[in-house]
Amino acid sequence: MATPDDDRNVVILGGGFAGAFSARYLHRALPHDVSVELICDRNYFVFQPLLPEVAAGTINALDAVTPLRLMLPKTAVRLGSVREVDFQAKTVELLQGAKRQPVIRHYDQLVVALGQTTDLSRTPGFAEHSMTMRDLADAFRLRNHVVQCLENADITDDEDLKRRLLTFVVAGGGFSGVEVVGELADMIAGALRFYPNVGKHEIRVIVIQRGPRLLPELPDKLGDYAGARLSARGIDVMTGTSLREATASAVVTVDGEKIPTQTVVTTVGNAPTPLMRSLGLPFDRGKVETAATLAVPGYDGVWALGDCALVPLGDDGYAPPTAQFALREAKCVARNIAAVLKGQAPEPFDHSTRGAMASLGHYQGVAEVFGVRMSGLIAWLLWRSFYISMLPGLSTKLRVALNWAFDYVLPRNLVQLDTREERGSYFVHLAKGDVLFDTGNIVDGLYVVVSGCLESRVPGGYEDFVRIVGEGDHWGERSLVEDFKTQGTLTAVEDTRVLVIPRHDFLKIRDSLDVVDNYFKRIPDKIYPPAIRARRADGE
Amino acid sequence: MATPDDDRNVVILGGGFAGAFSARYLHRALPHDVSVELICDRNYFVFQPLLPEVAAGTINALDAVTPLRLMLPKTAVRLGSVREVDFQAKTVELLQGAKRQPVIRHYDQLVVALGQTTDLSRTPGFAEHSMTMRDLADAFRLRNHVVQCLENADITDDEDLKRRLLTFVVAGGGFSGVEVVGELADMIAGALRFYPNVGKHEIRVIVIQRGPRLLPELPDKLGDYAGARLSARGIDVMTGTSLREATASAVVTVDGEKIPTQTVVTTVGNAPTPLMRSLGLPFDRGKVETAATLAVPGYDGVWALGDCALVPLGDDGYAPPTAQFALREAKCVARNIAAVLKGQAPEPFDHSTRGAMASLGHYQGVAEVFGVRMSGLIAWLLWRSFYISMLPGLSTKLRVALNWAFDYVLPRNLVQLDTREERGSYFVHLAKGDVLFDTGNIVDGLYVVVSGCLESRVPGGYEDFVRIVGEGDHWGERSLVEDFKTQGTLTAVEDTRVLVIPRHDFLKIRDSLDVVDNYFKRIPDKIYPPAIRARRADGE
Repeated sequence: MATPDDDRNVVILGGGFAGAFSARYLHRALPHDVSVELICDRNYFVFQPLLPEVAAGTINALDAVTPLRLMLPKTAVRLGSVREVDFQAKTVELLQGAKRQPVIRHYDQLVVALGQTTDLSRTPGFAEHSMTMRDLADAFRLRNHVVQCLENADITDDEDLKRRLLTFVVAGGGFSGVEVVGELADMIAGALRFYPNVGKHEIRVIVIQRGPRLLPELPDKLGDYAGARLSARGIDVMTGTSLREATASAVVTVDGEKIPTQTVVTTVGNAPTPLMRSLGLPFDRGKVETAATLAVPGYDGVWALGDCALVPLGDDGYAPPTAQFALREAKCVARNIAAVLKGQAPEPFDHSTRGAMASLGHYQGVAEVFGVRMSGLIAWLLWRSFYISMLPGLSTKLRVALNWAFDYVLPRNLVQLDTREERGSYFVHLAKGDVLFDTGNIVDGLYVVVSGCLESRVPGGYEDFVRIVGEGDHWGERSLVEDFKTQGTLTAVEDTRVLVIPRHDFLKIRDSLDVVDNYFKRIPDKIYPPAIRARRADGE
Repeated sequence: MATPDDDRNVVILGGGFAGAFSARYLHRALPHDVSVELICDRNYFVFQPLLPEVAAGTINALDAVTPLRLMLPKTAVRLGSVREVDFQAKTVELLQGAKRQPVIRHYDQLVVALGQTTDLSRTPGFAEHSMTMRDLADAFRLRNHVVQCLENADITDDEDLKRRLLTFVVAGGGFSGVEVVGELADMIAGALRFYPNVGKHEIRVIVIQRGPRLLPELPDKLGDYAGARLSARGIDVMTGTSLREATASAVVTVDGEKIPTQTVVTTVGNAPTPLMRSLGLPFDRGKVETAATLAVPGYDGVWALGDCALVPLGDDGYAPPTAQFALREAKCVARNIAAVLKGQAPEPFDHSTRGAMASLGHYQGVAEVFGVRMSGLIAWLLWRSFYISMLPGLSTKLRVALNWAFDYVLPRNLVQLDTREERGSYFVHLAKGDVLFDTGNIVDGLYVVVSGCLESRVPGGYEDFVRIVGEGDHWGERSLVEDFKTQGTLTAVEDTRVLVIPRHDFLKIRDSLDVVDNYFKRIPDKIYPPAIRARRADGE
C-alpha cells in the first residue's frame, strides 16, 4: 500500500542490464531520502552473453549470474511478478510467490526496463521444438539436452536416430547465435573422448543466418572472419537462408532442405514480453516509444529504456538493443530522474557506439572498439575482461577469473543437471509422414490431436486394422492402465499438432475428476474392434 | 540383443557408491576380455553426503558429482532406466530416452546396486509437502525453496506468514539430518545481511530426532557433542519425538505440537526403490537377501550389494548401509565375480567398521576413526579429505579443494537456480481449519477435492453464500477463463487432500479434449446462484 514515505520513490521494473544499472546509478544521483525499489521475477542479474558458456559447461552457472541483493546493496529488491500498472493511481500490482495476495506498490517515478522475449509463434514448430537462450534455465536445458543426445547416440543401433541426435542447429547468426554455435561445437568436440561410439565425422553443428554473412552488427570484414573461423572448426555456416519449420525430428529451411535433428536453438524473433504488451503503453516496432529524455510521453513519471524501449538517437535512428546502450541509458535515466525531482529539466540521451565484440568459443573472438578491429585470442580476452569488470567486489572477480583459468586445463564437466521435476502436458509438431510411434515402442501417455491427423495401423491376420485419429481424437488410452508397447505404428497423415499428456499427470486428473474417469472407462469399447480387444485381453 | 561377445560380461545396475566402485574394482580383478557395463538413470556419480552443502551453496553442484564416464573410463556407461530383468534368460530390458524402443542387454554376471529411496507414504502430508535429500535435484530444490522463503519473508507484512516462512524443520537426526540442519542454519545465518527486514531472532531451524540423541550411529558422547554444538549455534534440537503429519502450512509432532512452517526436509523412511521392488528377488526388511558371498541365492550369476542388499556380517548381524561398507562390498563382489569366472569359489564378505564421521556445518564435525573420537574442525577436515581422496584425477581434486578454500572467504551465493519448467498437477494436504484461499487471493488453477471437504464462503448482502466442495467436486473453475481474485474464503472442513491443476496445464487439456471442454462449459450455471453470477458478470 502507498505509505507517506513512498512519496518520493522510484520503482524499477526489471533486473537486466537496464534495470539493475538504473538502480546502481540512481543511488549515486539521488538524495538519500529517495528510496529505490527494484521489482524482478528472478533474484539475480544474468549476464546473457555468457549463457552459451554455461550451457557448454565452460563456466559455472553461478559465475554468469549475480544475486541482485549482492549487486545492489542499497536497493530494496522485491522478488515478484508484476500483474498490472495503474498509470493514473501510479501504482504497481504484483504477486509475491508464497501467498497469492496481490501487493500494491506506489511509485513516484517508474522505470520500465522489462527487456524482450523470443516470439516462437512466427515459425511453425518452434514453440514446441526449439530452445531459446535468454535465462539460466535455458542454459541448463540446452546443456542437459546436448548431453542426453550424446549419451543416446553412444548407445543406439539406429543410424537415422544417431544422425538426428548428432546434428545441432542454431537459428540466427547474430551475436547470440554465433556465441551459442561456437560454444556448442567446442563442448561437443571436448566431450567426444568420453563417447567411444561417437566419431568426430558424425557430428554436424550448423548455424543458419538469413543475411549474407554472420554478425551483421559488425563490419563485413569481422563477419567474414567469424564465418571463416567457425568453418575452419568444422561448423557448417549456412548463410542466405532461414528456417521455415521445426518438427519433433527435423528442421526445414525456406529453400525446402530438410535437416534431421533433435536440437534447434533459436536466437532470432525478438518480441515484447507479455507483461510489456499488457501495460498499454504506446508501442512502435514492438517497443515502447520514448522521448529523447527516455520519458514516456503522456505518462507522468514513467521512463523506459533498454531492449523494451524505442529510444530515438539524434539523426541515427534508434538506440540498438545492446548491453552497452542499456548501460548508457541507465546512466541517463538516473540523471534525468534526479533532475526532475529537483525541478530541473531532463536532458536527451546521446551516445555513439564504442564498438562491439563477440566470442566465437575456443578462445577466439572478434571485436571493433573505437574503430579498431581485433580478432582471435586478444578479442576473446577483451570480451571476458568486460564481464569481469562488471562483477561486484574484488573477491568475486577473482573467483570467476580463477574458475575460467581452471577451465583452460580441465576437462569439461558432462554432468546432466537435470532437476527432474515432473513435467505437465506439452505439444509436439509433426510433419506429414513423421512416425510418432513405431512397433514395440513404449507408450507413456495420452496423445490428443489438436490439429491435423494421425493414422494408427496395427498389422492383423487378413488385413491391417487402421484407425484415423483426427482433430479432437486421442490415442494411447491404454497407457492410462499401464505403460505398454505398441502393436503397430502411429504416423502423421498431414502436418499435425499433438498434445501429449504424460501418464503420471493424466492419472492424477482422471482419478480426481469423475467426468474424465467416466469418459475414459467407456473408450476401449468404442474405438477398437473386437479382434484387437481380444488380442489385448490375451496380454499381447 | 545378446551378441556372442556378450558371453562373459558383467552388467551393473546402479551408479552410486556400490555400483560405481564395483565397476572400478571389476576392471582390476577381471581379465581384459570380460566387458563391464554399468546401467544408470543419471550420467553422474553423486556423493550424497555433500548434497546438503550444495543445497546451502557452500560448494558448487558440479563439485559434489562426477560424470560416470570420467570416473570409469574403462566401463561402458549406459544411460537408461531399467524396466525389468529376466533372471531366466539373463537379460535386462531398459529404456534409453530418445526413442521409446526398449533395449535388451544380456548379462553373464549381474550386479544389483540400486540403493534405496525414501518412502514418503508413511507420514500423512510428507509426499505432498516434504523434501528429500538424495539427488542433485533435491539439493537444488531445497536451495531454491529456502531462498524463496527468505525473499518472501523480507517483503511480507503478514506476521504469521513470516513466522512460517522463517521456520525450517528437518525430520531425522542421523548423519543426513544432522548434515542438512547444520548446513541450512549456516546458509541462513550467512544470508541474513542481504535481507534487511529479517532478524536473526526470527529464524527457527529445528531438527527432530525420534531417539534420545543425535547421530545414534556414533558413540553417545559424540552424539551429545553434536547436539550441544548445534544447540549453541541456535538450532532447536528436539529429541524423543517425531512428526505425525505435514500440511501446506505446518508440521505436527506425535506429541501434538503444531509447528507452523513451509519447509520440511525428511531424512528418514528408507525403502526399496520401485524397480527394486518389482524385480521379484527375495526380500527381507526391505532389502535383497544375499549370501555371505554377496550372491543372491537361487539366482544364477546375480549379486547384490550396497544399501539395497541385506548382507550378513558374521555374528554382527548385517552390514550397515554406509558408503564405507558399500566400498568394501564392491571390492568383495569384484573379487568373487573374478573367482567364479575362473571356476573358483567365492569368499564371504568380511569387514569391521573403521569408524564413522559427520559434518555439522560451520567447519565443525564429529568422527570416530579406529576407535579414536574427534570433534570440531579436525573432524570436519577429515570428512572433507575423505571425499577429495575419492575424486578422479589430481586436477579435479585441486579444483574442488580450491573452490572450498574460496568459499571460506566469499559470501555464499544466493541465486535461485530455478529451472522454471512448467509444472504439472500436484497434491496438497490440508488439516482441518486450514485456509486454502483468503479474500482477494489470486486463483491460478483448478482445485479438485480428492478426499475430505472444503467450504467456500462468499460474503453476501443478507447472508453468506456457502458452498460445500466435497470429494470429487472442484473449485476455481473461473480460473479457466482468467486468473481472478477470490470474493471469499476456501477452508478445509476436515483433513483434506486436494489436486491442484495449474491453469496453463489445464487449459491445454481442456482445449484439446472435447469431453473436458463440454463439461466445464456447463459448470458455472450449476454451482453458483444467480446473484453471484450477476456480480461476476458485473466484473466484480
